Amino acid sequence: MIAALAGGVGGAKLADGLARLLGDKLSVIVNTGDDFEHLGLAISPDLDTVTYTLAGIANPETGWGVAGESWNALDQVAKLGGPGWFRLGDKDIALHLVRSQRLRRGENLTAVTADICARLGIAARILPMTDDSVHTLVDTAEGPLAFQDYFVARRCEIPVTGFRFAGIADAKPSPAVVSVLNDRTLDAVMICPSNPFVSVDPILGLPGLRDLLVQRTCPLLAVSPIIGGTAVKGPAAKMMRELGLDVSATSVAGHYRGLIDGLVIDTADAGLAGTIEAMGIKTLVTPTLMKTAEDRTVLAQSCLDFAAALRR
Amino acid sequence: MIAALAGGVGGAKLADGLARLLGDKLSVIVNTGDDFEHLGLAISPDLDTVTYTLAGIANPETGWGVAGESWNALDQVAKLGGPGWFRLGDKDIALHLVRSQRLRRGENLTAVTADICARLGIAARILPMTDDSVHTLVDTAEGPLAFQDYFVARRCEIPVTGFRFAGIADAKPSPAVVSVLNDRTLDAVMICPSNPFVSVDPILGLPGLRDLLVQRTCPLLAVSPIIGGTAVKGPAAKMMRELGLDVSATSVAGHYRGLIDGLVIDTADAGLAGTIEAMGIKTLVTPTLMKTAEDRTVLAQSCLDFAAALRR
Repeated sequence: MIAALAGGVGGAKLADGLARLLGDKLSVIVNTGDDFEHLGLAISPDLDTVTYTLAGIANPETGWGVAGESWNALDQVAKLGGPGWFRLGDKDIALHLVRSQRLRRGENLTAVTADICARLGIAARILPMTDDSVHTLVDTAEGPLAFQDYFVARRCEIPVTGFRFAGIADAKPSPAVVSVLNDRTLDAVMICPSNPFVSVDPILGLPGLRDLLVQRTCPLLAVSPIIGGTAVKGPAAKMMRELGLDVSATSVAGHYRGLIDGLVIDTADAGLAGTIEAMGIKTLVTPTLMKTAEDRTVLAQSCLDFAAALRR
Repeated sequence: MIAALAGGVGGAKLADGLARLLGDKLSVIVNTGDDFEHLGLAISPDLDTVTYTLAGIANPETGWGVAGESWNALDQVAKLGGPGWFRLGDKDIALHLVRSQRLRRGENLTAVTADICARLGIAARILPMTDDSVHTLVDTAEGPLAFQDYFVARRCEIPVTGFRFAGIADAKPSPAVVSVLNDRTLDAVMICPSNPFVSVDPILGLPGLRDLLVQRTCPLLAVSPIIGGTAVKGPAAKMMRELGLDVSATSVAGHYRGLIDGLVIDTADAGLAGTIEAMGIKTLVTPTLMKTAEDRTVLAQSCLDFAAALRR
């Protein structure tokens, strides 16, 4: 049994590699701090990226949304004076309609997600980190921005000064998440190569969650989302720079220091292994860039082997 | 200034003919008794049929929805276990998303409809009969059915015994509707060839609305939706039969007796004119079947001329 913590695109790719190897032996705990309501729809960007990726229907060009998507509804929304800035394809809207209706009827996000995953033929468990509302706020010189305003509407252009997770003090990890992390048969917990600040920290910041990880009986490893001084996708590198951090796997190690047993870094960053090991974090140096489906399973297998080695 | 009372397809066609002749001198008061919530969306079938028809984008084959529509969202909804029985095209969903969000934010249906009509380039005013909730219930041997359950899910197959309009006692005609019907410059009120029982009666049943019509200073005429013993579209004829009524323009006259000054009947029903006139209702015998856009304007002009004659 493996638990993975994931955000969007990068996390979804490794989760997909793990899912191909592990099937229903994998639980993916997904950030919901980016969730928001838009056009009356409950939008869960990271959850959907993981879901579509594991279902094999993700759009490979964008990293979000469904492959072969059409945009007829959104075009008409714009004609009718509605907001067109957040790109929702027709099939994607279908998932949002189904989810939003079920949430409004009182089902929780965990149950709705499980049902959607079953209907899309996903064997792994995809678990929203919480059934409560957490809203990531990006602090900037212009004041705090809701995550999607920062990420989509403002294209991450404005420099960040920090992050907050509104509602997190009153949020609980879902019972399913607690159960997975409490499972004594768990072989490893893996933090996927997701943005440490806005994808992983909301998960780690849930009350009680860090304690569950500290009390674990299995290895906890992370995969660096920073390769050769840059992020594969998304604003992680830019955020590090703006926060005054080195844009490097070393900063990732520093971020997770005291929590993780091992860090997987790219061969491009082999020279950083000594510094990271000196922090008391074991390293695995291996190619981490996932361009193909095979890359995903190869990296997933490397992570599983690394975790097995850390267990010994 | 002309006010028209309309339901779905047949009503929308005459309203379109009137709109082509009158532009912004026309107000169409539309039944909202069929409105319901579906997939978390506020659906207003008659309002949308009138809107799409007057915008020139109605689907000519179905009579409802948008021409050249795609069904990608609904197909995916069905794959995800959501309800597929109520056919919502992608562009149609866009209107529902925009409307639902604005209603949830506290705007009323009249204001939202006015804005949508403006964006679709409609000069005539399309007025929902009320901003309150009225739900048409069809009484059957199996008990009452919500209108869409009867109309779409059950395809009108079960015999009806009567109709009720839940919530109507607490509903008010919208201020815009009251204002239109109180307007002393109004030249005529026309009841379009819509279903008398489930399209027009909900409008007429709104508290105070019938009084507004009785106090009018202009002619009130109706166009029979029954031609040669059958309805052009929809269950009006079937309902009449099940209620023990003659399926005829005479029954339409009987239904509106005491309210209307004149009834427009088809040339196929010329033989009924005497009986109808004996009820104190003037008749105009003219072709009423609207197959082409020209048919709509020709009938609309005939109705306007008839009204003018009744005024003298």
